[in-house]
Amino acid sequence: MVLVSPRNPLNIGAAARAMANFGLPHLHIVAPFAPTWREARSAVGAPELLLNAVESPNLAEAVAGCTLVAGTGTLTHRKPEQPVVPLPALASLVAQELSRGGRVALVFGSEKHGLTREDLSHCHILVEIPTDPRQPSMNLGQAVAVCLYELTARSPQPEAPRQEPPTSDAAAPSARLDLLAGVIEEVMRAAAYSPHSMQAANRHDLRVMLRRLALSAQDTRRILGLFRRILWRLNRLSPGSGVST
Amino acid sequence: MVLVSPRNPLNIGAAARAMANFGLPHLHIVAPFAPTWREARSAVGAPELLLNAVESPNLAEAVAGCTLVAGTGTLTHRKPEQPVVPLPALASLVAQELSRGGRVALVFGSEKHGLTREDLSHCHILVEIPTDPRQPSMNLGQAVAVCLYELTARSPQPEAPRQEPPTSDAAAPSARLDLLAGVIEEVMRAAAYSPHSMQAANRHDLRVMLRRLALSAQDTRRILGLFRRILWRLNRLSPGSGVST
Repeated sequence: MVLVSPRNPLNIGAAARAMANFGLPHLHIVAPFAPTWREARSAVGAPELLLNAVESPNLAEAVAGCTLVAGTGTLTHRKPEQPVVPLPALASLVAQELSRGGRVALVFGSEKHGLTREDLSHCHILVEIPTDPRQPSMNLGQAVAVCLYELTARSPQPEAPRQEPPTSDAAAPSARLDLLAGVIEEVMRAAAYSPHSMQAANRHDLRVMLRRLALSAQDTRRILGLFRRILWRLNRLSPGSGVST
Repeated sequence: MVLVSPRNPLNIGAAARAMANFGLPHLHIVAPFAPTWREARSAVGAPELLLNAVESPNLAEAVAGCTLVAGTGTLTHRKPEQPVVPLPALASLVAQELSRGGRVALVFGSEKHGLTREDLSHCHILVEIPTDPRQPSMNLGQAVAVCLYELTARSPQPEAPRQEPPTSDAAAPSARLDLLAGVIEEVMRAAAYSPHSMQAANRHDLRVMLRRLALSAQDTRRILGLFRRILWRLNRLSPGSGVST
């Protein structure tokens, strides 16, 4: 489970308590506000999983090893770029992913703004808790509790995670997709496909698209190989590349 | 929804927020700690349903009109006298009860001790949230959120509550069961069935049993009629009753 920039130590404590209630051990914290994070960890009775939480500077690093990244939030003010999955439908997706050797992350944004568009570009799906349209926004600790209840208590997962290496149809981990996106971006630049002013926007769209495609590890390896080859060719042919022979 | 003696204003606020998130309008508070209750209601942005909450001196009064009273809690330290229903199975019971014109209350105990044995004797069932045995006890606001998610978001109820009077197989409201229990207790006393030292214990067991039987309104009317008749006979026959003719 990943918390992105939580602001309130009580909410961090509440999220940790819900994780303990539902038997989830691994917490990642992305870019926490330092005093908040210190206060939450030094609270009396702070659970062990808070003390063992892994801190990451950004979401990409936190979910690098994950094959299914599920962001959470409400949809009131934006049109999502990711497929939206109602929470009651999430458990079967997660079970399927785990059964083929994948790793899953559930990501919660900060209390005030939720996940940003940039955060969401690292997510394969956006999970929506069905709430009353007049009061859609949930408290962070309560949203965590509801999601974990759905995933663990309602839909028990197999006890021990599989130890085998991912099979060939397992999804590509997030870090591999980032690597692929980086190579494709280099290709675009080398091919003068993408004007400079559009690069940030293209990078964003590319990240979203690669996740929507649900590439397997093997797909990713092949596509990466292809784009590396293209890049090599482009650089070799381009007079300004410095690799001309 | 009923909160019994909540101690922490933040928890009351969190419970109210979850109710707003999941579209439940009616909150009852039983025997609140006065300063706590004042603080929760005067909090900035206190939702309307907190301002409209109904205060009752005891649980019996709060659930008097209800035909299905579901207590919540963990089972770690006691053997429950009520049937235990795992939360995922609650929605179908509630839907069934509502469809035959009944009224349902979901009851949460105080943060520290949960519902007492006395509180539970007013409940027909005990709802258990399936949590990790190493950390079973949930935060009040989170437990409320999880229960309401299960009852509303996962299992939408029919929009408008039925306006017809209860049908003959509708369950007896709690206050009717209390009336029946009172008459039966009088009969026991009149028949010298229950020694004085046992009366409190018998009263408790009787309350538990009447709820376990799931009496319909019609059952209750008949049994009440029978016991009133018995009482009248006993009083008439007994020399010390003062009603001898």
